[in-house]
Amino acid sequence: MNGRIERLRAELDRLEVASFLISNPVNVRYLTGFESSNAFVLVRPDEVVLMTDGRYAEAARAVEGVDVQIVERDFLPGLARRLGEIGRAPVGFESDHLTVARHAELLSTGMDLVPIAAVPLVLRAVKEPGELDAIRRAAQVVDRVLARLAEENVVGRTEGDVAWWIVRAIHDEGADDVSFTPIVASGPNAALPHHHPGERELGAGETVVVDLGAKVDGYCSDCTRTFATGELPEALREAYAVCQGAQGAALDEVRSGADSRGIDAIARMEIEAAGHDVLHGLGHGVGLEVHELPVLRQTAAGSLVAGNVVTVEPGVYLAGLGGVRIEDLVVVGDDGPDVLSSYTKDLVTLN
Amino acid sequence: MNGRIERLRAELDRLEVASFLISNPVNVRYLTGFESSNAFVLVRPDEVVLMTDGRYAEAARAVEGVDVQIVERDFLPGLARRLGEIGRAPVGFESDHLTVARHAELLSTGMDLVPIAAVPLVLRAVKEPGELDAIRRAAQVVDRVLARLAEENVVGRTEGDVAWWIVRAIHDEGADDVSFTPIVASGPNAALPHHHPGERELGAGETVVVDLGAKVDGYCSDCTRTFATGELPEALREAYAVCQGAQGAALDEVRSGADSRGIDAIARMEIEAAGHDVLHGLGHGVGLEVHELPVLRQTAAGSLVAGNVVTVEPGVYLAGLGGVRIEDLVVVGDDGPDVLSSYTKDLVTLN
Repeated sequence: MNGRIERLRAELDRLEVASFLISNPVNVRYLTGFESSNAFVLVRPDEVVLMTDGRYAEAARAVEGVDVQIVERDFLPGLARRLGEIGRAPVGFESDHLTVARHAELLSTGMDLVPIAAVPLVLRAVKEPGELDAIRRAAQVVDRVLARLAEENVVGRTEGDVAWWIVRAIHDEGADDVSFTPIVASGPNAALPHHHPGERELGAGETVVVDLGAKVDGYCSDCTRTFATGELPEALREAYAVCQGAQGAALDEVRSGADSRGIDAIARMEIEAAGHDVLHGLGHGVGLEVHELPVLRQTAAGSLVAGNVVTVEPGVYLAGLGGVRIEDLVVVGDDGPDVLSSYTKDLVTLN
Repeated sequence: MNGRIERLRAELDRLEVASFLISNPVNVRYLTGFESSNAFVLVRPDEVVLMTDGRYAEAARAVEGVDVQIVERDFLPGLARRLGEIGRAPVGFESDHLTVARHAELLSTGMDLVPIAAVPLVLRAVKEPGELDAIRRAAQVVDRVLARLAEENVVGRTEGDVAWWIVRAIHDEGADDVSFTPIVASGPNAALPHHHPGERELGAGETVVVDLGAKVDGYCSDCTRTFATGELPEALREAYAVCQGAQGAALDEVRSGADSRGIDAIARMEIEAAGHDVLHGLGHGVGLEVHELPVLRQTAAGSLVAGNVVTVEPGVYLAGLGGVRIEDLVVVGDDGPDVLSSYTKDLVTLN
């Protein structure tokens, strides 16, 4: 963990603050290994202070290399005490996490607060070897689940039933948990990118979008495949070909230094050239959270760097009829993508 | 849903704002029925505007009584356009949800933003009959799961295995989902109020804290029982009696008009009088989220009102040895509590 604290400390001077106050629980975990719903970490040049409430006291005391302070659930008394000790030096805070109300409370203690936005998230976007290993194993769980799903009879079962089958399979394949509730979107529902699986029974001759992820050692995977249930109408066969082509073309461009917006544009242009609307961006980073930095979309800035882990997931959606989405999880390498999702992207027909 | 919008509109004058901008997705769902990870609702005296991005376009258009605007994923262009139309009248925003960064972006459009903190959460704290019905069914799922668990052999199985058994049982009993990952904390782990179930095997002669909840029609339940695995050491038997006594004493005082802090104090004093530290507050509201208003703890303000749904869950924790927590889910009534959790609170021994 110490390397992570050091990487954050290296930003103190650039941002002209004396310390960082970390409030996002995922960043607290990333920096200290400590998991809770309620903790602040103060990172100073010479110490790391972990503040949490009594519910987590015993777990906090097991964290190495930090000064643990058990404080009231709302933190203010403990924070104010500690900040009285360290004076009025500027404190960087996570402006993309702290609420306006919490910020106002902290200001009322006399703190000099400086927004640092996504600095810890930027650190997290470049994965260490151990993190890549966990993500790879989480992706392998999904590969095995998809292979097993292809052997299942799904026509006539509800989307909700298939989604629950996936949850059980992810667990049975050794994951700690799902990384999100699986999406199973069939027939006209497949035209809704974020459909919630429901009571609709899968019919024959339609597409089924299956979007799933596993969690292994805290790290997420994310993968989508679109299946057919028998012979598809011409429009959906075409949509599949367009989506597969766009996905492959964008994937080919993933490498260190590639422009995030430019990769999104490759898929976007192919889909629009075929006469379809683009309903969502191409992809997003994956790690401790299933949506993190970097993002690949029209409004993205910046370039990919080696060690980023991103999804590449264009979709083609035909309102009222169906839809296709194909998503790989990939590690950004110096010379190209290291694709973690190995299940076939050719159209597979389920019974 | 319209009654909810009207209850919110009734607050416009008191708070001296011309409209409310709702950003918390749970409050968006509560007010409009629309579920997404990314939406804003602008509630004005004469209209309700629902803004979301293209991924949710088709689902948004199915919402009745709202003007749907599909905007960029970051909302600002769409918001700025609409706010240009309605002028510079003050807009109430959820200061307990909006981040400092998002707030700064909105300010940059020239909006006159007024913090309204928890106003929608306060509305949600009083449940309608349909909401109470869903919560009651979610509580009944948990009752049935606990009764089934009491028939299982658990000694020698890991906490993680038992937790997964609970997840499957909650699903099999008809719930849509769990309301949170179940806690199964055994032996010394039972002394940690928020233990994450792991590889520890349940031994004989210890306590096992089982904290679980189901989700039915979007509404949560929450319940804890502590089991024994064979004859307990004297200290844990005493802890059980103290916890059960404190829970019953606090529960007896739950009614409309009761002081939230006072109810917490009843259990707190009994536990402290027996020589134990109190590691957490007595309880919290439950509804669309498993933690919502009102809260029952030392720093709470205000009184309970009829239609609140709260947990009553004192704990007695003996570091290194074990712990006991007993939690009921109750509806606050005019004359007393309507207890939704029916599984016995007497000590049950598992094999």
